[in-house]
Parts: sequence; structure tokens; C-alpha cells
Amino acid sequence: MANTKAYAAQSAQSGVAPFSFDRREPRPDDVSIEIDYCGVCHTDIHFAHNDWGVTAYPVVPGHEIVGRVTSVGSDVSTYKVGDVVGVGCMVDSCRTCSACESGLEQYCKEGMTGTYNGTDRYDQSVTFGGYSDNVVVSERFVVRIPEKLDPAAAAPLLCAGITTYSPLRHYGVKKGDKVGVIGMGGLGHMGVKIAKALGAEVTIFTRSESKVAEAKKQGADHVVISTDEQQMKDATETFDFMLDTVPVQHDLNPYLNCLSHDGTHILVGLLEPIDPALEAGNLVLKRRVLGGSLIGGMPETQEMLDFCAEHDISCDIEMLDIKNINEAYERIKKGDVKYRFVIDMATLKNA
Amino acid sequence: MANTKAYAAQSAQSGVAPFSFDRREPRPDDVSIEIDYCGVCHTDIHFAHNDWGVTAYPVVPGHEIVGRVTSVGSDVSTYKVGDVVGVGCMVDSCRTCSACESGLEQYCKEGMTGTYNGTDRYDQSVTFGGYSDNVVVSERFVVRIPEKLDPAAAAPLLCAGITTYSPLRHYGVKKGDKVGVIGMGGLGHMGVKIAKALGAEVTIFTRSESKVAEAKKQGADHVVISTDEQQMKDATETFDFMLDTVPVQHDLNPYLNCLSHDGTHILVGLLEPIDPALEAGNLVLKRRVLGGSLIGGMPETQEMLDFCAEHDISCDIEMLDIKNINEAYERIKKGDVKYRFVIDMATLKNA
Repeated sequence: MANTKAYAAQSAQSGVAPFSFDRREPRPDDVSIEIDYCGVCHTDIHFAHNDWGVTAYPVVPGHEIVGRVTSVGSDVSTYKVGDVVGVGCMVDSCRTCSACESGLEQYCKEGMTGTYNGTDRYDQSVTFGGYSDNVVVSERFVVRIPEKLDPAAAAPLLCAGITTYSPLRHYGVKKGDKVGVIGMGGLGHMGVKIAKALGAEVTIFTRSESKVAEAKKQGADHVVISTDEQQMKDATETFDFMLDTVPVQHDLNPYLNCLSHDGTHILVGLLEPIDPALEAGNLVLKRRVLGGSLIGGMPETQEMLDFCAEHDISCDIEMLDIKNINEAYERIKKGDVKYRFVIDMATLKNA
Repeated sequence: MANTKAYAAQSAQSGVAPFSFDRREPRPDDVSIEIDYCGVCHTDIHFAHNDWGVTAYPVVPGHEIVGRVTSVGSDVSTYKVGDVVGVGCMVDSCRTCSACESGLEQYCKEGMTGTYNGTDRYDQSVTFGGYSDNVVVSERFVVRIPEKLDPAAAAPLLCAGITTYSPLRHYGVKKGDKVGVIGMGGLGHMGVKIAKALGAEVTIFTRSESKVAEAKKQGADHVVISTDEQQMKDATETFDFMLDTVPVQHDLNPYLNCLSHDGTHILVGLLEPIDPALEAGNLVLKRRVLGGSLIGGMPETQEMLDFCAEHDISCDIEMLDIKNINEAYERIKKGDVKYRFVIDMATLKNA
């Protein structure tokens, strides 16, 4: 296999840096992809900086990949050379457990194989992601990018898009439902667009008065300033569904109280212990549920892309020269991006 | 209205004691009931002892009431004199909000009126419960006790029965589902019987090896000792539904990990802050949900009684002379009852 150029995070200190390695020889079910665009997810920063203590260096981040097929293995039937395709957060799973058989590979009982920092199920090599000029992925974990979508703006749909689409669909959000979206970042702005396309009446919850105009611009019908006690009180028991995109610890109780009986609060950004403590009474006394959701399965990811094409939805992006990736990381940490950086992989040639 | 004899909790110290008062004059939609049996719920003890700081003394506890209709108001169409009827945890609600209109009076947006220690919506008097020789209740909040059920053993169905039936039905537990029941008290043993009748494969989770034989006797297919790390590990990702009847703080995380992806953990006994902290990752990474459920609505309570009659289900009870109520409270607090005390209200005559 041709030598692959990539940007790798080589230590927690140095961030990403130029790097070369060999991609695996394509297997019969593999699709080889020349990468055009790769979105930058906050998760990339966590891995680059080993925030979760699980990073195997060197790590090549990137799981919002869009590119063109350059070759296909002998068993590949869905894609042909030249197709515009995408790869999201996973590149393999056991494929045989009840979750995989239901097209919910992200909940594979043996654990999905991450697009980067994962372990290949055949040769136990570490997987490398999309800050790279090419990638080799099994057909099952490749999706088609509809022609109507701008390929660069479609890249973040593979993570931010599917992460918000999946719970909205799974819980049957529909026309007229009152949906709250907590947080106004990469995930939140996608949540607003998708919930609106599903016909919901959408309210953005934000801590900052300064984001009201932007929230309205994104299509939110209403904005609640979550730090305003009166506004939160007025929202009591008025929502059907709450999409919580906040990735840091926060008090869930005030939001739960905004849900009607039988309302649903879904976490898509938080992986830590819930603190302050959840009040059991806020669930029991109104039959509310608190749940979580992780990206989406492969069939649903394709469905999401087709839905976005149909409804003219894509991510708001800022194009990035890969040389500026460390600066982009700093800006993401400060919330200074509307709403996703996408690396123009053509800039890798000159890096 | 004839003078009513009752046992009232008159202070946190003295527990319950004989007491007389006037029941309200029946309104056109009211059913007057001579009480034959009243179950003793742990909630009664919390109110008697003012554990939640909301008790209005004197309180007459009791919300698992079975008796016979002695008169009906002019608007009553469902019941006639002599019918065997029941009254559960609530005696009124606003009747017009979306919850009430859906037959979910327990989630009334204005708050349901509790059978005791509640405030009557018409005259603002405090409601008195079932440790009494009679009660007057609006027809909508009365249910029919099917002939096939033993009236004494049916009394606890009005709280312990409906509290476990409602979530099992709401979440669609069905034949072949793997259901865990956490805790083996009044609620837990009802949960096992109802889940079994729904066709589920039922596992009791208990801290104590000494309860294994009893759990099997109640119909559990399996028992997991929750303090045994290996047994809990072996149960990882094997359950569809967890019915959690434990009324005190406990670590939910090990039980969540016993659920498959898309599994549901329902709290019916806990009203306090969740401590130790819930790990958000245990929800997000497997799309599990944590919810709660509160008794059941009036139509569902009738449905539950009919279901229990059809499946020959009732509560395991120990009959109680009302003179021994304080001793019964002490035994309940020690978990020393299989599984519910029911007061034989005939003993009130001699008290």
C-alpha cells in the first residue's frame, strides 16, 4: 500500500504533527478512499491530549471523513471508483451480536472499532483516522454522500449530525412536539436544524444572553436563558423532549422539571458522573426518563445523510488549513467556532 | 354525616391512636364506603413520623382500602350499594389537564389529591385515609374489586400492585423479556408475580443469600446476589428491563450495566437524590434509559385488578388487629413482614 501522509498527535504536549505510515493492504470487502475533507470534533482534542487516559500515541485523529473512492475490493458491491463517500466514528464491529444485527453497530456487545485509536479486529493494529490523505475501510462502515450535499459541510454530519439525528428519531420526535436543545455548539446547532426539519417547535437553552440572536438565526423558535430563574420557572412542565448536548457536568434537575409527564431528556455529550446529583423524584413523580445516545448505526447514518439532503441541511463550517490545527483546537476549547472546523485535506500536500 | 372512627397519627412520637371526626357530607358524584380492609404501606410510616416534613397532624394514614358501598350520590352510575370496591393513593385531581384527560391522574399538572394528608379541592379540608371505618370518595377515584379476588389480599394491590404493574405495562414488558426485580419487599414480590404473568423471565436481585429460597417460591426464575461481584459481572448486558423497588439510596450503576443496549431501569421506590452519582456513560454508551413511575392512573388501576383476577394474583398478606399497628410499623421498618400487613377493620370496633 502506498505510503500515507497524516497529521498525528504524538504526545499530550506537542499536539498534532506531520507523520507518515502505511495503510493496510485492502481486503476483499474494503473501500480505499482519498480524503478531501475531515471535520474536527472535540473528541479529537480529548484523544490528542490523552484527556481520557486511553490514547495510544501516535494517534491520527479525525472521524468526520469525506472523500472519493479510489479502489474497491473484490467483494464490494455498493461503491465504485469515483463515488463520494463518508466514514464516521467507527470502522468495524463484531457484526454478529444482537446490536450489530439490528444495525446498531455503535452498541456492539464486543465494542465497536473506533475510526482512530481503535484496534483492528484482524491484525490488531491501531486504527488511524481522517487527518490523512487516505483511509481504507470495510464497505459496511462507509456511507454515500448524497449529491445535493456540499461534501465539506457534510463531513461533520458523520458525527455531530448523526449524534443528534439518532435520538430525535429513536424517540419519535414529530410535528408539533416541543423540543428543547441544551447547548449551542456543533451538536446543538445540528440538533436545532434536524428537530425543525422534523416539524418540532424548538427552544434553545443557553446560559448566555449573547447567543439569543444566533440561536434564532439557526432556526430556534424560542430561546430560554438557563441562568434566568424566572425563565426556567416559566418553562416548567412544557417540553416533550430535551436534547442535552453539554459535554461537561451540569445540573440536570432544572431541565428535567421543564419536561411534561412522560418527557424524555437525552444526553449526547456527557460521559462523566452526574453532578449535582439527579433527584429521583424528578423522574418518578412525572414518569420522566433520562437516557443517553451514542452516534448512530450505519443504516441510520445513511438515512440521516439522505434526510439532510432532502431537507437541505448541512453543518455550518469554517474551512481549515491543516497547518493551523493546533490553533483550531485552542479556538474549539474556547467555543470560538461556528460551528465546526473542517480540514481541507488538499492543504496536507503542502504541510 | 355519621361520626367516623379512625386511628390517627397524632405526632411523630406517639404514632397512631384512636380518633373520631366527621367525614364530609357526600356530594352527587360521591361513593360512601364501609371499610373492611386497609393495607399498611411504608409511606404510612413516613407520614405518621413526619419523615418528609409535610405531615399535617392528626393524619389518618391508609391508601390501600377495600370495602363495601353503603350509599351513592345522585350522579353516580358505576357503583351501587353492596358493591365491593377499592380506593388507592389518590381521591381527586384537576380532571381537566392533559394528564388527567389521558387517565394519568397521578401526574395531574395541578397535583393529585392524596387519599390522606391531601387537601380537598372543594372545601380545603385535609383528607383522611383508610385506617377508619368509612370513607367518602368521588366515583372517578373508586375501582371495582373483581369477585375472584380475596378482598383482604386485594387491598395492597391498590398501591403495591399498581406501582409495579404500571411501569411493566407502560414499557411493554412481554413474553420472553428478561426482567430484573431489585428488592424483595411488598413492591418486589408483586413485581415478580406480575412480570411472570406477563410472560417475562424474572430474576430477583437481593443482597442476601437468605432470600434465595423465598425468591424462588415467589416465582422468580433466577436470583442474583447483588453483593457478589462475580454474579453481577456474569449478569452484564443480559437484561431488558429492571424494576427497582428499593426505597433508599443505592448505587444504580452496577444494575445499569446489567441492562442490554436499549434497556430500561425504572425507579418506583426512590424519591431522594441519586447517590452514589449516576455515571452518564452507563446511559450514553448503550442507549439505556433511567426512568421513574408513580402508582398508576384510575383506568390502569382497574385494568390491573382485572389482570390480577384473571391471573390469580394477589398480595401475600399478614392480617393485623389495628391495636397492633405500632408494632407492625416496627416490623415493617425491619423488613419483617411477608409481604404486607392488612388491617382487619372489624378490629376497629373494639379498639
